[in-house]
Amino acid sequence: MYPEPIKRFIDVFSKLPSIGPRQATRLAFYLVNSGKSHIEEASKIIAGLKTIKICSECFFIHSNVDKLCNICGDNNRRKDIVMIVEKETDLISIERTRKYNGRYLVLGELTKSGVLESVQKLRLSGLKNLIKNRDGQIEEIIIGINPTTYGDLNAMLISKEFQGLAKKITRLGRGIPTGGEIEFADEDTLGQALERRN
Amino acid sequence: MYPEPIKRFIDVFSKLPSIGPRQATRLAFYLVNSGKSHIEEASKIIAGLKTIKICSECFFIHSNVDKLCNICGDNNRRKDIVMIVEKETDLISIERTRKYNGRYLVLGELTKSGVLESVQKLRLSGLKNLIKNRDGQIEEIIIGINPTTYGDLNAMLISKEFQGLAKKITRLGRGIPTGGEIEFADEDTLGQALERRN
Repeated sequence: MYPEPIKRFIDVFSKLPSIGPRQATRLAFYLVNSGKSHIEEASKIIAGLKTIKICSECFFIHSNVDKLCNICGDNNRRKDIVMIVEKETDLISIERTRKYNGRYLVLGELTKSGVLESVQKLRLSGLKNLIKNRDGQIEEIIIGINPTTYGDLNAMLISKEFQGLAKKITRLGRGIPTGGEIEFADEDTLGQALERRN
Repeated sequence: MYPEPIKRFIDVFSKLPSIGPRQATRLAFYLVNSGKSHIEEASKIIAGLKTIKICSECFFIHSNVDKLCNICGDNNRRKDIVMIVEKETDLISIERTRKYNGRYLVLGELTKSGVLESVQKLRLSGLKNLIKNRDGQIEEIIIGINPTTYGDLNAMLISKEFQGLAKKITRLGRGIPTGGEIEFADEDTLGQALERRN
C-alpha cells in the first residue's frame, strides 16, 4: 500500500521511544504534506545531532572540544558528591532547581526486569574506579532514581555496590509533593511522608 | 542548558503532530545515545520522503512517474463514485476493507472551527470542476468524515456544495460497532442505530 520511502520511515520511526506505528504513519504523511524544504530541514536537523558528544565521565551530552561536559568541566562544582540519575532529562530537572552543586552519573533508563544492562554496569564500575583512584572515598552518593517499585529495587542494588566508597549513600526525599493534599495522597506516599518527617 | 543542535531539534520536532517539547527532548537524547550511524540513517530516511509525490487528482501520496496515484491511475476503479476523506490514514482504513472500488479526495484534517482552510477549499473546487468538465454529474459522493460534532457540521457544508453534482450524496453508516454491546453504547450511537436500522 505504501511507497518504499514511507514504509522505511514507519519502520524506523515507529521504534523510537513512545512512537508507535500509528504515530509514525501520521508523521510520515505530515512531513510529506509539509513540503520538500521542510523535509530537508528536518533531515538536516537530525544529522546535526551527530556533532553532539557524550561526556566521558558522567555520560551527559555536550558540544565541547574537551571530553567533558559543562558540569564535569566546571571546577566550581563539588567532585565529592555524585548523583546517579537514569535519564538526561532527570539531570536537567535537578539542575533547574539550582540547589545542587555536585556531579552526576547518567545511567540510562532502567529496565523493569531489575537487571542492569551491560552498558549500565560499565558506567557504574567507571564511577567506582574514578572514586577509588581519585580519593578512595567521596562524601556522598545520591541515588536519584524514581521511587517506583523497580526503581527502589535498583536503588538498593546500586547502593550495595557503592558501600564503602562514599561516607553517605542517600536517596531523594519522599513525601507529599508541594501543592499536594494529604486527603488525596496515596497510602504509600503518606506512609513515606510520616516515616521521613523532619 | 542544551547545545544548539539539540535546541534546534526540540524546536522543530516539538511542532510535529502529537509530539510536544517533552517527547521531542526524549527523542533527541535517544537519538544522540543511539550513535552516529543510526542518526545518519534517520536523517536519510526523512530526506527520502522528498521523493514522495502527491496525486494531482485525489491528493493521496504516490511514487509513480505519472501525476496520478495508484488509485486514480487504476482504470478498473469507478470514476463516478468519490469518497471525500480527511486523512491519508482514513483512505488506507477504507482500502483495507476491500469493499470500495471508487475514487477519493483527501481533504486534509479539518480544524475544529468548522471553517475550511484555503487548501481544502481549493481541493473541493478542484473536484467540482473535475465533475463538471467530465460528466456534469456523477453517481455518488460519499462523505467519509468522522461522525463527530464538527465533522457533522463540515459534512453538511460540503454536502451543500456538491448539491446537483452527484445523484446521491451519502455518509458512512452510523450505529453500534461490530463487537460492541447495546448495553454500553452511548445514547447518541444507539439513537443513530435505531434511526438508521435496516
